[in-house]
Amino acid sequence: MIKYAILGFGVVGGGLAEVMADQSEKLSAAAGQPLALGHILVRHDYPDSPWRSYMTQDFSVIENDPEVAVVAEVIGGVGAAYDYSRRAILAGKSVVSSNKQLVAVHGAELAALAREHGVSYLFEGSVGGGIPLLRPLCRCLSANRIDEVYGIVNGTTNYILTAMDAQGQDFAQALKKAQELGYAEADPTADVEGIDACRKTAILADLSFGWNVDPDAIPTTGITKVAPADLELARALGYTVKLLGRAARTENGCCAFVEPHLVPLGHILASVNGVMNACAVRGSAVGEVVFCGPGAGAHPTASAVAADIADAVRHMADPMVPDLGRPGGKLAPAEELPSPWYVRAEADPEAVKALFPEAEPVYGTSRECGFITRPMPRRELETLAAAVGGRAFWRVLA
Amino acid sequence: MIKYAILGFGVVGGGLAEVMADQSEKLSAAAGQPLALGHILVRHDYPDSPWRSYMTQDFSVIENDPEVAVVAEVIGGVGAAYDYSRRAILAGKSVVSSNKQLVAVHGAELAALAREHGVSYLFEGSVGGGIPLLRPLCRCLSANRIDEVYGIVNGTTNYILTAMDAQGQDFAQALKKAQELGYAEADPTADVEGIDACRKTAILADLSFGWNVDPDAIPTTGITKVAPADLELARALGYTVKLLGRAARTENGCCAFVEPHLVPLGHILASVNGVMNACAVRGSAVGEVVFCGPGAGAHPTASAVAADIADAVRHMADPMVPDLGRPGGKLAPAEELPSPWYVRAEADPEAVKALFPEAEPVYGTSRECGFITRPMPRRELETLAAAVGGRAFWRVLA
Repeated sequence: MIKYAILGFGVVGGGLAEVMADQSEKLSAAAGQPLALGHILVRHDYPDSPWRSYMTQDFSVIENDPEVAVVAEVIGGVGAAYDYSRRAILAGKSVVSSNKQLVAVHGAELAALAREHGVSYLFEGSVGGGIPLLRPLCRCLSANRIDEVYGIVNGTTNYILTAMDAQGQDFAQALKKAQELGYAEADPTADVEGIDACRKTAILADLSFGWNVDPDAIPTTGITKVAPADLELARALGYTVKLLGRAARTENGCCAFVEPHLVPLGHILASVNGVMNACAVRGSAVGEVVFCGPGAGAHPTASAVAADIADAVRHMADPMVPDLGRPGGKLAPAEELPSPWYVRAEADPEAVKALFPEAEPVYGTSRECGFITRPMPRRELETLAAAVGGRAFWRVLA
Repeated sequence: MIKYAILGFGVVGGGLAEVMADQSEKLSAAAGQPLALGHILVRHDYPDSPWRSYMTQDFSVIENDPEVAVVAEVIGGVGAAYDYSRRAILAGKSVVSSNKQLVAVHGAELAALAREHGVSYLFEGSVGGGIPLLRPLCRCLSANRIDEVYGIVNGTTNYILTAMDAQGQDFAQALKKAQELGYAEADPTADVEGIDACRKTAILADLSFGWNVDPDAIPTTGITKVAPADLELARALGYTVKLLGRAARTENGCCAFVEPHLVPLGHILASVNGVMNACAVRGSAVGEVVFCGPGAGAHPTASAVAADIADAVRHMADPMVPDLGRPGGKLAPAEELPSPWYVRAEADPEAVKALFPEAEPVYGTSRECGFITRPMPRRELETLAAAVGGRAFWRVLA
């Protein structure tokens, strides 16, 4: 009998307690021995909760309980979550987490500490929510040099872009609807500005490149400037708009960035709508594989965290710590990565043809047109687009 | 230093030797210790092969080499492959395999033998080729009751259906082209009649239901009767045609079947074209996740087998044997599973409306029409479809 503790009783913490109870037999089989809930760390009393007898407001109760072998950190943020994760590892307990901010910022440090103390540090739920993604990337694709990872890693922005595309709403309307449905927070900044996607992209880059990427070094553009006209023109051109996080090996080195992209309508990612997430992995042996599913939510995220708990227990004699890379790597500048571009311009057709002979502009309802360029780096595109009255431009997924 | 042996030097065997050499450092890290090629079992001499010094035509050389800890069986079929797999396990060696026929027919027996002898038996490459699928299903989704697994698990038939859809070819033309490109074998029976998909569906059902499914008990319909008119009418109705293997828990018990389906054009599986494979998994906690990628080919399949070799070595002290289920389970009859149906009929519109008031028939170029019914079991559909001159009917993925 091995005990686990849950830190935090928000959406994911509550879902985790339920999922662990619902599938206790199957999880115990996966763990190789029976699992039992030890404690739930809460910030206030839940008088009506069925888990009340397990609840404590004092982390040291968990820290000092020798029967607790695994701690699931589902608090979020980099304050208490960081402190408790460190203390749990120092106390000889494995830590599993769905906290992308903590993993992106302090993950490599916590991983090193876990290795030093002979415990597991797992974080499958930190990227892609319930989608099995990090373990497949690290374990199932171990025969591959990872050349690129890219995907839709934020459900809020994908919901907003899907609504803008399907219903012709503008950004503000779609955001308001997302907030009403609970898909966006009251302060939506971290989602709509791409900050959440940036953290997840950093984790994917860490696992793919072998060195630890500072999320602050990843150029990040959110979706606030995507206009209904872009979605309309994109569709006329045979594309839809998705916010992609990308991490790729290029001729100039590894680069990573987050920005809206035009995705061809026949591409699998174009079918990933609403709050769904999807991530593609390009490997030297396998070619390209894609993982799709719910990127957030109580039970999906709990599904990932619960499997990590079982795996941590299964590997107590041989701890699992994914390699988040060594420090000191430097990202190659993303703006030099050539790419075809979509341009929306108040354009004179002759001027477009002169500068972009490959383009076949499509006109929207206003005097604006949209077109796709040949591959070029961002600087070249900016100069050319300015010359034809470019109002917006986004990368095109080739 | 741990040695592995490769049984078979066909497409996958050759790819495996290459991938193991190409990524030896990464694979050794995943295995926890250096890996080295011990032997390759071949049926005839390869005088010009760079691997010639490793080749043997005598399995007992491998069987009796105490340094060989893992044997990769990539021979195929259930003859020598079965014999060598058994003997390797009896000799205390882990076995990894991409042989779907062997795993579907004798997998549970070999798994039991492996457990008895304290070695791993892994077969990630047997379903979905290079797509990480079985390990995610068994390990990452251990917090889920698996309610359904369904997908495109045969690349040959998907190539043919894609060609029929995109180029308006009939089955015979598309098959011929697939044979020219090496996507279909000279005797295409196992692919086009759904037998290969059936074996993979059996493995997915084994892993999902907890009991071992006899592939011969899975009702299987291939794609030879899918007509160009079906693809044309399907598209007019907003669908495409895919051969799906499905294994699902229903009110009447677990059922499994392989047959062509109409898939809505917005569904992720509709974007999975050519020789690509994709598999969706519906779990109690996660909801639905989808895994896509190359379902066959030398390097993709080798990617899966190589990761299994590394994992088998990593787990020598704690062997990995996925649960292929206990014997004796009985599939519920698939024909009772209600489903909406697509019907192609030489139809009198009034007669269609009378029997299928929910249908909105779409007419093709001839006097044939296609329509989608309300959900009903197969028997009811057959009776009703006969009454309106039904010429073909396929399930619709709801």
